[in-house]
Amino acid sequence: MTPAPAPPHGHGRARTHLDAAGRAPVHPAAREAYDAALAEGWADPRRLHAEGRRARLLLEQARESLAAALGCRTAELHLVANHTTALHAGVRAVARGRRRVGRAVVASAVERAAVLAAGRWVAGDALTLVGVDRHGRVDVDAFAAALTSDGVAVAALQHANGEVGTLQPLAAAHEAARAAGVPLLVDAGSSVGHVPVPDAWDLLAADPGDWGAPPGVGLLAVRARVRATPDAPEDEDAWSPGGVNVPAAFAAAVSLQAVLAERDEADARRRRLVDRVRAAAAAVPDVDVVGDPVDRLPHVLTFSCLYVDGEAIVGELDRRGFAVGSGSACTSSALEPSHVLAAMGALTHGNIRLTLPARVDATDVERFVAELPHAVAAVRDAAGVVGL
Amino acid sequence: MTPAPAPPHGHGRARTHLDAAGRAPVHPAAREAYDAALAEGWADPRRLHAEGRRARLLLEQARESLAAALGCRTAELHLVANHTTALHAGVRAVARGRRRVGRAVVASAVERAAVLAAGRWVAGDALTLVGVDRHGRVDVDAFAAALTSDGVAVAALQHANGEVGTLQPLAAAHEAARAAGVPLLVDAGSSVGHVPVPDAWDLLAADPGDWGAPPGVGLLAVRARVRATPDAPEDEDAWSPGGVNVPAAFAAAVSLQAVLAERDEADARRRRLVDRVRAAAAAVPDVDVVGDPVDRLPHVLTFSCLYVDGEAIVGELDRRGFAVGSGSACTSSALEPSHVLAAMGALTHGNIRLTLPARVDATDVERFVAELPHAVAAVRDAAGVVGL
Repeated sequence: MTPAPAPPHGHGRARTHLDAAGRAPVHPAAREAYDAALAEGWADPRRLHAEGRRARLLLEQARESLAAALGCRTAELHLVANHTTALHAGVRAVARGRRRVGRAVVASAVERAAVLAAGRWVAGDALTLVGVDRHGRVDVDAFAAALTSDGVAVAALQHANGEVGTLQPLAAAHEAARAAGVPLLVDAGSSVGHVPVPDAWDLLAADPGDWGAPPGVGLLAVRARVRATPDAPEDEDAWSPGGVNVPAAFAAAVSLQAVLAERDEADARRRRLVDRVRAAAAAVPDVDVVGDPVDRLPHVLTFSCLYVDGEAIVGELDRRGFAVGSGSACTSSALEPSHVLAAMGALTHGNIRLTLPARVDATDVERFVAELPHAVAAVRDAAGVVGL
Repeated sequence: MTPAPAPPHGHGRARTHLDAAGRAPVHPAAREAYDAALAEGWADPRRLHAEGRRARLLLEQARESLAAALGCRTAELHLVANHTTALHAGVRAVARGRRRVGRAVVASAVERAAVLAAGRWVAGDALTLVGVDRHGRVDVDAFAAALTSDGVAVAALQHANGEVGTLQPLAAAHEAARAAGVPLLVDAGSSVGHVPVPDAWDLLAADPGDWGAPPGVGLLAVRARVRATPDAPEDEDAWSPGGVNVPAAFAAAVSLQAVLAERDEADARRRRLVDRVRAAAAAVPDVDVVGDPVDRLPHVLTFSCLYVDGEAIVGELDRRGFAVGSGSACTSSALEPSHVLAAMGALTHGNIRLTLPARVDATDVERFVAELPHAVAAVRDAAGVVGL
């Protein structure tokens, strides 16, 4: 079996990928590291023989490197299957560990779908969502107030919103959580690799897919002081039943090192390019650019186009050679209105999100800027909304 | 970061790997397929653009190929993170889907640890374990009787025991399960790729790691007629929150095709080699060879050596260039007495398990046969048990 021929629009012309969130183009260093780790560390790291020891050594190297990058102790870092699994595991483990306190969960209204789903799973209708301002930034006073209500097992606040790029007031939220004695889970899945890793957290989830690692691993750091019990059937590897994907873990570590070494340069460059696209998008008639213009991730931008739907614009840009995202960033293909934009009071239709890969080419971004007004006009034209 | 130097005994001499269970040496076709699928299908298959469609197409190809090999419909096949996850998900989903029936679980006493853990998770003390004969074969009358008790949500019986190789009376067990109206989960993690896939099941779990795929995927087939609800927070991919590892899935499919094409030849050859080792092991003083001598997997054999512990023999054989397993096959490094051997009434200490990779070299097996008596004698000697 060989990979089937690519579907239309996939090949035969230059492609510009501007949809790196959660699954960035694989970093060349990560690809090499994966192959080396699969060759050396293919065995089960829990076995006692030389092959098992070699896999275990690779896994330990990966864990130490990743823990150092996240600013936690190696023993505090758990490797799971993917970012969603990490978020589910974090919320559930604290809820289980603190079940005598209560089952309530507090989260911002703009958390990733996985956090909200895990919150509903453990809390049912005792899930409190705290509102945000028009940039998507949580109301930190309301967040603090919610933390003081009875029976809060765990709170969740993202480091930055992956859909609109806005950074959250993490220090203040964590201070309030500490005062209330509630562990704070920080979803840093959109930020690690792009901005400095925060230290205001009790649990931290980070997403190797977002920094160019191959799939197969998610990271969950849990401070030793947090009472957390994996909410799953017993297994030798309690946080990752069945064991960790060793080559994926090793590739994630190598990829993060490579990305961090290039970060300052990559992010200054991407920040300029994002500013460029924000201005260009704002100049298109009836287009709203959302998210904090300054206090934000360097590589994410979102805008909404009146009178058209997101799928149509994604398709039109795709035909013109650009891969972009739309709708809820959490599930990406979902054509439901984004809960993030709705919570911000922003337009939810005709939404386009760009997440620029670290190595994005400025010329490609200029091409995008040149094509965008035509793409929007073409979609509006096809929908018969011209002149509205 | 590059892979650290290999630990002692890992390099510099020929190694013979005889511990392929659950993580076989990666099949060359699987390695190639992984690389091709990562290059073509690195994107999130849930995205709408060309890169997403290409990943989706690869995933669909993989699912169709795997479903055909397992004898189920594509829609009945769910891809999860690994084999343990598949077993947990299967037991839990049926228990949840049939919670009005009751929470009891029936399983053979020699199921994999993951099945027993999931059974305890959903059933607590309403987990009934059915005993086995001295070869590890379940008492099918007792199994059938247990199925007729009140409130049984789900039953589990492996296709073959991965630790001792004995095939289970699946047809009779499935007939009893159908008569009782209880869905039967069949763990085929040790058998698919080695003997024909069974068709007497309601849920079937298979393990790509066992047939030489890189890590990152487990298979769970659920017949459309079974009432099963994933027991996890809501996600766009209900059976695999966060989505499927596309390159791993594609590599698993390619690897299975390659392994099935070679199976008859590989298994006749391995059966002869296993017979050879069984005879040689039985000739070592105070060594018990266990498992059905005929009605068994072609590549698994287990024996126990009186007066010594398994770890010591694994270490001694490792120093002599042979990687073998010991203890409970389910968790592999566990030095706890094997629950399988205990259930069979067999000696639980000094246990060694060989699982021969499909491409095992007959000369290497002959070397093993020649070394085994000396290795056992050396360990007994070191432990001061000579002459007992």
